Amino acid sequence: MINVGVLGATGAVGQRFVQLLAEHPLFHLKTLTASDRSAGRLYRDVVNWRLDVPFPKNAGNITVSRTDVDSLKDVDLVFSALPAEIAGKIETECAEAGIGVCSNAATHRMEPDIPLVIPELNPDHLGLIDVQRDRGRDGFIVTNPNCSTIVMCMSFAPIRQFSFTDVRVATLQAISGAGFAGIPAMTIFDNVVPYIGSEEEKMERETQKIMGSLDGNSIRPAPFSVSACCHRVPVIDGHTMSLWLDIKEPVETIREAFMNYSPPIRDLPSQPPFSVQFMTEQDRPQPRLDRMRGNGMTVSVGRLREGIRYVAMGHNTIRGAAGASVLNAELIHSRKYL
Amino acid sequence: MINVGVLGATGAVGQRFVQLLAEHPLFHLKTLTASDRSAGRLYRDVVNWRLDVPFPKNAGNITVSRTDVDSLKDVDLVFSALPAEIAGKIETECAEAGIGVCSNAATHRMEPDIPLVIPELNPDHLGLIDVQRDRGRDGFIVTNPNCSTIVMCMSFAPIRQFSFTDVRVATLQAISGAGFAGIPAMTIFDNVVPYIGSEEEKMERETQKIMGSLDGNSIRPAPFSVSACCHRVPVIDGHTMSLWLDIKEPVETIREAFMNYSPPIRDLPSQPPFSVQFMTEQDRPQPRLDRMRGNGMTVSVGRLREGIRYVAMGHNTIRGAAGASVLNAELIHSRKYL
Amino acid sequence: MINVGVLGATGAVGQRFVQLLAEHPLFHLKTLTASDRSAGRLYRDVVNWRLDVPFPKNAGNITVSRTDVDSLKDVDLVFSALPAEIAGKIETECAEAGIGVCSNAATHRMEPDIPLVIPELNPDHLGLIDVQRDRGRDGFIVTNPNCSTIVMCMSFAPIRQFSFTDVRVATLQAISGAGFAGIPAMTIFDNVVPYIGSEEEKMERETQKIMGSLDGNSIRPAPFSVSACCHRVPVIDGHTMSLWLDIKEPVETIREAFMNYSPPIRDLPSQPPFSVQFMTEQDRPQPRLDRMRGNGMTVSVGRLREGIRYVAMGHNTIRGAAGASVLNAELIHSRKYL
Amino acid sequence: MINVGVLGATGAVGQRFVQLLAEHPLFHLKTLTASDRSAGRLYRDVVNWRLDVPFPKNAGNITVSRTDVDSLKDVDLVFSALPAEIAGKIETECAEAGIGVCSNAATHRMEPDIPLVIPELNPDHLGLIDVQRDRGRDGFIVTNPNCSTIVMCMSFAPIRQFSFTDVRVATLQAISGAGFAGIPAMTIFDNVVPYIGSEEEKMERETQKIMGSLDGNSIRPAPFSVSACCHRVPVIDGHTMSLWLDIKEPVETIREAFMNYSPPIRDLPSQPPFSVQFMTEQDRPQPRLDRMRGNGMTVSVGRLREGIRYVAMGHNTIRGAAGASVLNAELIHSRKYL
Repeated sequence: MINVGVLGATGAVGQRFVQLLAEHPLFHLKTLTASDRSAGRLYRDVVNWRLDVPFPKNAGNITVSRTDVDSLKDVDLVFSALPAEIAGKIETECAEAGIGVCSNAATHRMEPDIPLVIPELNPDHLGLIDVQRDRGRDGFIVTNPNCSTIVMCMSFAPIRQFSFTDVRVATLQAISGAGFAGIPAMTIFDNVVPYIGSEEEKMERETQKIMGSLDGNSIRPAPFSVSACCHRVPVIDGHTMSLWLDIKEPVETIREAFMNYSPPIRDLPSQPPFSVQFMTEQDRPQPRLDRMRGNGMTVSVGRLREGIRYVAMGHNTIRGAAGASVLNAELIHSRKYL
Repeated sequence: MINVGVLGATGAVGQRFVQLLAEHPLFHLKTLTASDRSAGRLYRDVVNWRLDVPFPKNAGNITVSRTDVDSLKDVDLVFSALPAEIAGKIETECAEAGIGVCSNAATHRMEPDIPLVIPELNPDHLGLIDVQRDRGRDGFIVTNPNCSTIVMCMSFAPIRQFSFTDVRVATLQAISGAGFAGIPAMTIFDNVVPYIGSEEEKMERETQKIMGSLDGNSIRPAPFSVSACCHRVPVIDGHTMSLWLDIKEPVETIREAFMNYSPPIRDLPSQPPFSVQFMTEQDRPQPRLDRMRGNGMTVSVGRLREGIRYVAMGHNTIRGAAGASVLNAELIHSRKYL
Repeated sequence: MINVGVLGATGAVGQRFVQLLAEHPLFHLKTLTASDRSAGRLYRDVVNWRLDVPFPKNAGNITVSRTDVDSLKDVDLVFSALPAEIAGKIETECAEAGIGVCSNAATHRMEPDIPLVIPELNPDHLGLIDVQRDRGRDGFIVTNPNCSTIVMCMSFAPIRQFSFTDVRVATLQAISGAGFAGIPAMTIFDNVVPYIGSEEEKMERETQKIMGSLDGNSIRPAPFSVSACCHRVPVIDGHTMSLWLDIKEPVETIREAFMNYSPPIRDLPSQPPFSVQFMTEQDRPQPRLDRMRGNGMTVSVGRLREGIRYVAMGHNTIRGAAGASVLNAELIHSRKYL
Repeated sequence: MINVGVLGATGAVGQRFVQLLAEHPLFHLKTLTASDRSAGRLYRDVVNWRLDVPFPKNAGNITVSRTDVDSLKDVDLVFSALPAEIAGKIETECAEAGIGVCSNAATHRMEPDIPLVIPELNPDHLGLIDVQRDRGRDGFIVTNPNCSTIVMCMSFAPIRQFSFTDVRVATLQAISGAGFAGIPAMTIFDNVVPYIGSEEEKMERETQKIMGSLDGNSIRPAPFSVSACCHRVPVIDGHTMSLWLDIKEPVETIREAFMNYSPPIRDLPSQPPFSVQFMTEQDRPQPRLDRMRGNGMTVSVGRLREGIRYVAMGHNTIRGAAGASVLNAELIHSRKYL
């Protein structure tokens, strides 16, 4: 068992990390960090547990630490649920102190030698860990993409061989992506907000890196044009999106590719039976009914039509955030980087 | 004052007609029809008024008639809120009995000599009324498009001179479009349904007719390719949509066109101050905040970006249904067809 | 293993029964019935699975039967999820054909020799099974109360020794209680409906029977006065209610009773670790966060104050419907009535 | 016309004040105050208008002032939408500087010589203005009760002659009461929160003062016992509540009182045609359908039953906040205190 910690363990993504790691077969949850005013108290006394799954009792007995590298002496790996504006410094310090960092924060995602990884899509990008080590780091930083980018790119995995380069995507995103207090009820109730700060840019830019290829010490971006329109809708969990791809092959060929997909990774503990589930019902996927497929790690695809058009949907705080980082860590472990 | 009736006056769209016509400057609400079991009773005793505006007392005192042409002897014009499956026969009978019909039903929309009209876009299509009369009808049928088609096409009005032909549109549609009982709460609560029966086909097909040109006795369809992805979202009123258009002109040129738009019609009673309102805030339009602009007759546009991408939003049961029919009737009246 | 069936297996409560019985340690799910038009087809082909838990594959392979007693030759026990208007006849026929019936339907609840049972409260009422048998039935009918009655009465279990007789209760009830299509979204969205047909009467009347005592061949009703005000609110699952009880003891005494409660039943498979969970946070219980405690079988209680006032909340389609029937069946089994 | 100002004009209640005062027949909106960083800019440039009614253009051209007494030289009356924690000081300063203050803030409500007024219930309590003036104030402070207190007490107005003293009330309160950003969507979505800080205490305490009688220089509290259970529900506007009253008279007598109610005030501009509307439909009032009756100033009552039980509902930010203050000001004006 590898001792691990969670940076920023009391927020929405932090609580998901704690849930996913509380009984993990490879990782032993040892350290939880939060703000200075919570440090020194038991996790169960400082967290306002807001997930609709039972509170993990063992985690509750961990004494919360300050979010600094000195608090992390006992762990080999940390998961970062920190907000982007404070994640940068502490994540770098961890990596230089010999700790592996699997981060959900946006800060380091686009740096040249930081892998931006979805295990089903670009596991080989972990090669950048060697680049980080060559320049003297004992630890490393590995990031996962933004939640909507992950759901979209997962839907590309079964069909990337069709060499599309031009994507239009309209998202209908859940409120949990903004954290427990991110979106006032008065803002989103009986409403749609057709704007999410930086989200469209992230989808457009991160996709080029994820779909790109490892070329020596950096990633050569894929020549992808992603044009995104992002909307917030009154849904708790689960990002839905409709996509248009410039694929010339007939719908039937694409359908077979979705149905016969087998991911290039195997036997990671958090990997669901189906990384991408193709649904044939005419009105699916739907976030409330399908977001928990594969314990929240499956991306569901449906409504494939001429265009090529289809709908993709995935759980934004599991597959799109905490679960993405944990799966990355499992991949890193299986590739002997730990 | 012209005596008018409403066919199917107790449903969601029927109630909107009654609201809009109760104090209309041109039309006098004389006849309300409903199912046989309601006939002979006062409207106020049979309607379950579900709009959040006060019940119009005068309309309440009208004795409800059966939905047949004999009940319509006193009116020159009827508004049809009937479901598509029963609208066809009675609307035709009315037209042949010398009554003008402004219909929100889909049944006759695509027939060659039936105008499918949005006053700001194709008022000249009313010329088909003459075609109908030439073949012996004393009355006529004029239809308005489907709710999402109307909102989309209204957003084209200020920019149609840019000669785009390729449109992709993702809609986020309100629940009221399906009637008072159309969508169970268990279906749409905390959810998105990425499918609305026939909606995508209507948007694709109706647009070609609306944007087409009157050519002798029929409409030559515009060479429009509309590729639509329709989603139902948990919003009461107001259809939001994101669109991509193949326009080469720079964003700034398009913005000016939106801001300087002046519609080709004037002074119709239901016409709002702004048929299309261009919003500059980065997160607008939003259905809850903007659907009642222009008493529900304004279509709001915003988030214009490279692509060309933008967001359009309009009230689906006012501008997208009952209000559309009433505005058509006002146009018909101003063009002396009544 | 006892072979069991579900009557009305495709509706909201029927699906919950299938979910709860699919991998049950005592009961083997053998027969599923539905309407005539579904009979003869596989369950997976006729059900529109709407629960947010995975579809149980084994149940999917059962060929659906017609809802009549001839279809139930292979089972010893059936669970009835039938609507009240058709449950009466078939349930009686089953009981007379030697089959045990655990029914969620209201039809037989108030009949003199039919037990209306909540295992934690009145397990001895099962004695009425003997009364039924004495009059010649080989099988039996046992019913569970209405969903809101169950949540309320469960909250009485730890404190019934304080001999209150006067209860006022205001409920805030979830939409799932009305079935998948029971409540239109337009009715309950951004709204409260302060009326649920027959609900207040059920709470008032059923409670007297449940809290009553077995006296020879029938139940002597408890002298309970329940005055209920029932409201439907926009919540998917979980009935919340505030109660006032005429208890003279101090709040602290009541709190200790809630915290030290131990139910009179033991080791039934569906019984949760805590039948009644007392919460000390000032703003709990809440339906979204607490309804799945004890796999939906725990009733949560909080906000105990002078009055005596408190809040109770439980899952209406699990503890309040299908789970209630299954727990009753487990109790019946443990008492050797099967 | 009397020149008036609004203290705290950019928040949820402040915007309602601006809406209600923008075209008022007695009051001329002259001054709008906000935080220091907004001072000196036009109201239209600092307010994020979130009401679903059109922005009042004239108000938009007012230059926002700092929230201090020096900014209020031009007005004779101010409406206070300030949060309780800062309202106290500035309101007192205004009153001492000769300005009348109609305040929605809780700060001064329970002070002995400050009237807590609902015009239909206790207009004579304005006599305390004389008490304030006797101790040297040129201006005055008049407050309106908390939103849920107002809705409840308004429902007492037609029946107070029945001399009840024991009230139990369960509220289902809308989210707008907590301001635009007060309640995160993640908190209240698909949920009920059975706790609102200080709300139950306010309902219990304020009612005694409102229903009390002016006795010399202070109010003798009415011997009212109000036992409240307050719940937040996912509704935008409109507080619904169920009440039990210890009235011995038969239901029919109470019904007649509700139906024949005529308020003791007349012809105030914001007074609705019916201060209390008694509804006979079995499922009304409902917040979405009934909150805008009387432009949001009517309290609707229904479901009167043995108990005595009934349901009351009113718009919490109009009748329950800004509209309450404006109506108080109109009463003050009609009684020549201005």
